[in-house]
Amino acid sequence: MKLSFETIALIGKRQDDTVAQSLRTMAAHLNGRGCRVLTDPSIADAFEGGGIEHQAWTSPVNGVDLVVAIGGDGTMLYAARLVAEAGVALLGINRGRLGFLADVGTEDMIETVDEILNGRYTKEKRIMLEARLETPDGEFTDIALNDVVLQKRDTGRMIDFQTWIDGSLVNTHGGDGLIVATPTGSTAYALSGGGPIMHPGIDSLVMVPICPHTLSDRPLVVGADREIEVRVLEREDTQSEVTCDGHLLGKLSPSARLMVRRADCVTNLIHPVGHDYFRILRSKLHWGRNTRNTGPWEGD
Amino acid sequence: MKLSFETIALIGKRQDDTVAQSLRTMAAHLNGRGCRVLTDPSIADAFEGGGIEHQAWTSPVNGVDLVVAIGGDGTMLYAARLVAEAGVALLGINRGRLGFLADVGTEDMIETVDEILNGRYTKEKRIMLEARLETPDGEFTDIALNDVVLQKRDTGRMIDFQTWIDGSLVNTHGGDGLIVATPTGSTAYALSGGGPIMHPGIDSLVMVPICPHTLSDRPLVVGADREIEVRVLEREDTQSEVTCDGHLLGKLSPSARLMVRRADCVTNLIHPVGHDYFRILRSKLHWGRNTRNTGPWEGD
Amino acid sequence: MKLSFETIALIGKRQDDTVAQSLRTMAAHLNGRGCRVLTDPSIADAFEGGGIEHQAWTSPVNGVDLVVAIGGDGTMLYAARLVAEAGVALLGINRGRLGFLADVGTEDMIETVDEILNGRYTKEKRIMLEARLETPDGEFTDIALNDVVLQKRDTGRMIDFQTWIDGSLVNTHGGDGLIVATPTGSTAYALSGGGPIMHPGIDSLVMVPICPHTLSDRPLVVGADREIEVRVLEREDTQSEVTCDGHLLGKLSPSARLMVRRADCVTNLIHPVGHDYFRILRSKLHWGRNTRNTGPWEGD
Amino acid sequence: MKLSFETIALIGKRQDDTVAQSLRTMAAHLNGRGCRVLTDPSIADAFEGGGIEHQAWTSPVNGVDLVVAIGGDGTMLYAARLVAEAGVALLGINRGRLGFLADVGTEDMIETVDEILNGRYTKEKRIMLEARLETPDGEFTDIALNDVVLQKRDTGRMIDFQTWIDGSLVNTHGGDGLIVATPTGSTAYALSGGGPIMHPGIDSLVMVPICPHTLSDRPLVVGADREIEVRVLEREDTQSEVTCDGHLLGKLSPSARLMVRRADCVTNLIHPVGHDYFRILRSKLHWGRNTRNTGPWEGD
Repeated sequence: MKLSFETIALIGKRQDDTVAQSLRTMAAHLNGRGCRVLTDPSIADAFEGGGIEHQAWTSPVNGVDLVVAIGGDGTMLYAARLVAEAGVALLGINRGRLGFLADVGTEDMIETVDEILNGRYTKEKRIMLEARLETPDGEFTDIALNDVVLQKRDTGRMIDFQTWIDGSLVNTHGGDGLIVATPTGSTAYALSGGGPIMHPGIDSLVMVPICPHTLSDRPLVVGADREIEVRVLEREDTQSEVTCDGHLLGKLSPSARLMVRRADCVTNLIHPVGHDYFRILRSKLHWGRNTRNTGPWEGD
Repeated sequence: MKLSFETIALIGKRQDDTVAQSLRTMAAHLNGRGCRVLTDPSIADAFEGGGIEHQAWTSPVNGVDLVVAIGGDGTMLYAARLVAEAGVALLGINRGRLGFLADVGTEDMIETVDEILNGRYTKEKRIMLEARLETPDGEFTDIALNDVVLQKRDTGRMIDFQTWIDGSLVNTHGGDGLIVATPTGSTAYALSGGGPIMHPGIDSLVMVPICPHTLSDRPLVVGADREIEVRVLEREDTQSEVTCDGHLLGKLSPSARLMVRRADCVTNLIHPVGHDYFRILRSKLHWGRNTRNTGPWEGD
Repeated sequence: MKLSFETIALIGKRQDDTVAQSLRTMAAHLNGRGCRVLTDPSIADAFEGGGIEHQAWTSPVNGVDLVVAIGGDGTMLYAARLVAEAGVALLGINRGRLGFLADVGTEDMIETVDEILNGRYTKEKRIMLEARLETPDGEFTDIALNDVVLQKRDTGRMIDFQTWIDGSLVNTHGGDGLIVATPTGSTAYALSGGGPIMHPGIDSLVMVPICPHTLSDRPLVVGADREIEVRVLEREDTQSEVTCDGHLLGKLSPSARLMVRRADCVTNLIHPVGHDYFRILRSKLHWGRNTRNTGPWEGD
Repeated sequence: MKLSFETIALIGKRQDDTVAQSLRTMAAHLNGRGCRVLTDPSIADAFEGGGIEHQAWTSPVNGVDLVVAIGGDGTMLYAARLVAEAGVALLGINRGRLGFLADVGTEDMIETVDEILNGRYTKEKRIMLEARLETPDGEFTDIALNDVVLQKRDTGRMIDFQTWIDGSLVNTHGGDGLIVATPTGSTAYALSGGGPIMHPGIDSLVMVPICPHTLSDRPLVVGADREIEVRVLEREDTQSEVTCDGHLLGKLSPSARLMVRRADCVTNLIHPVGHDYFRILRSKLHWGRNTRNTGPWEGD
């Protein structure tokens, strides 16, 4: 039977012993199924001496059919940024508990991968963001699966900034900054900032002000086909930075502007059959656990 | 020149003297422009003695081209429910400050109506909800422009309920209830309950738990093409009610279920040219006012 | 050795089999230690046929040294209201998981009670509230350990009300109502409404608006020596109710007023040595559990 | 008649023309009343050529009876830190709208100051915080009227930290940081972070986690007689800073600890007779303004 994916790249933090062991187990199993296994040259030594056939990749996307990332949601974010533009499919194996993105546990990984190689899987497109920082010194761009974040660089002072959507002024904000999140990112930093959970199937973004000075400056959900513009206002002693999934893109000075829009690429997540987004939410957010008996306000 | 709208129905609370006066002024002006003016028989006496030609309607939608509602957002909700199924266009005149839905002030209403009659206006579709209460005693349905709300009827106890989306369990909740809101309703009760603002252009709904027992039970944005199901769990001494835009639909008992989905009808709002949703948000939410000098945490 | 407490009253929902079994076990053990055991006449049959000596009380406070409540936080609230005015000490045994108030588990209860009878325990005073509803038809009062709550009675409309502290106007509110909570109640309904957690040692109350119409209408912490006054404003089609720890006190009409102040009595909680409030918070609120690996926004 | 205050120091940002003008007006008026006027040497040129008698101070507290700060709440914070340890009384004149701390407007300042000089005023003690940063390189301390804030220095990663109260572990937190605020600071940054408003009369502090990773990690109000300890956990690529009223105290490394307690000094605010804290709240937070007609969820 033809395999659904033949050339498979493995990604993981090999310094983590549990991850390194899972990488070896996975590589050996894929060898056995007849797959070609590619790895990051920096993790090659994790495979030494085990009789595991593998090749260092030149890039995780050239000729690759599937990337398997072993770790947690952080490793998935890293992997997504590597492969998104090439459109390569991505499967997440969670080293610990279930993740939002890595929804297969290490205990089930062999069985699950076999199912997937045999064609039993679902594919889910997750929208991504493109951030473009236009400055007097040039233009800088990056993509993000979770969020593009504007944040004050200096801890003692708030920043003032303005937002536009498709050229219409939205608001003049004061506070710690702004999170622009995808549905995928809505359960990450944006949730800590007071944003809503957004089902991955909706084609919208959410703008979440961070510790806003004005209490009515609330999260705003807008269509993903809109272009968001952010400018900071001149203010003594403040600096602002922009990050994409936690990676620094650059400083946002009053003479620059930040443009955020849906990226042309998406992350193609592979899920085992029976994947259930709400089950993951319930597990990650400790929902509905003994609602009646153990919560804060009714004991009986 | 042909008028954009020829037969126009007027809606307003005639007990409010300011509204009654505006209704008369509007009716007289529409007479002068050659429009046919229809009114609710109950408000007919507002027009007496002024030489205003008008007819009592049999319904505000039969043969009507445009409904003009004078009052506030509450009057707009009332009007929307009357005319939505027939698809008649709706223009809101705000008796006081700008409303979210009634975005024309009484001071500008004559000028604005003239522009609109002359064809200079924009039309905006707002999605609505259909609630269907399936009980052992029969099925009850209603529509809503803002929200469908499940709420405890008795003040001393919380209710337990479960939610499903397209048949998949979402969560088991404890608390005061649940608001299912459209983008239009996102700036109403849902906002007080901690929900996000949703741009009217997005095709999504938001489910906002009211005073949830579990602190991670946060607002959830889902596509408007989904069907939401709600069931309450049996619990001593509690009762639950369902309302649509504040109108009682019925009780939700453990043997019943509530289904909420996007209605087949929409509200067709008429706006003057230059209508700007964000300007209304800024005004209604006191956004961006002297952010730097007068807010709670930096005085200089 | 003299026992710390000689006459002990037992409280619990005998309809709950687990509770009934624990009541029997506790009564038999107290018999063995030489205590006199008193019970609610309605639960006397839980003790039949077990050779357990016990007497029906005329009241749970006459001649009683200690009340042991077996159940959960709801049973504790019930017990607290019964015994507070007489100042009798109260020990809570939790039938399930740890409660905020009932902080001894059934598995440890015998050992813990022995320690307590031998004098090894701590006593903690928890302040309570007194609510006085002054109406044209008379005055109604009640006490509460958790909270006094004003809430709309009808689900479709919000209520308008005003608050004063020691005679000074605080605010004119619109919304679903107001929670006035003690530190004990701060982890109950008030927490679901957005209030802060207040350490039981502080002598303050918190006023938490429920789903407030104005987004800056935030929880307000005031000294427990203040008197809070609440009046509702006349509004078509709305009614308001006042409850104390979930028990209906009465309706609040525009011609009445609600006065809330610290009660003269307190709840005297008995804790085992080593009682740790923060440990209970961590357990009940799922705090700090694998913060790094399993939360919503960083998986690695 | 003897003046209540004879030697008066003036504080203000003289670069701001409005402030400079008010400083001159105030100084001239105080001259006329027979007060001795002291000023910061750096603002002395604001008084040149006006025939105003004034002396440069060696410090704003030596021999000073009253400090008058003209500006806004930021200027008041600055002044409070200068004078608190000496216990000198402080009066705030607000250059713009009413401030939380500077509650006299420039239009009323002469009349108000006369009343105060004649003995008609109230004095209010506001508690302050003392922060002590204990590091391998030494100990650093500072005081704050509003808040002591721990915050991540690098924008892309959250920090992990633990809190103790009087030596008992409270929680292990993940997020952007922690605000420890006085009642005065509760309406500043802490409010933007989701904390409650605390009446200035209560002797409590509030600990507000900033964008906490765990959604149940909520603001915690504790007695002001408690000592709060904070330590950050080792984490790759993160750094944390501590500020007092926005002034950098230092970095908090995993080998250091931050201790926060009520300072020995207080700020002695002088208010005109009739000062009403709730009136200031209502004004600053746009409370109760046309609750019924103009808010987000009921227009009529």
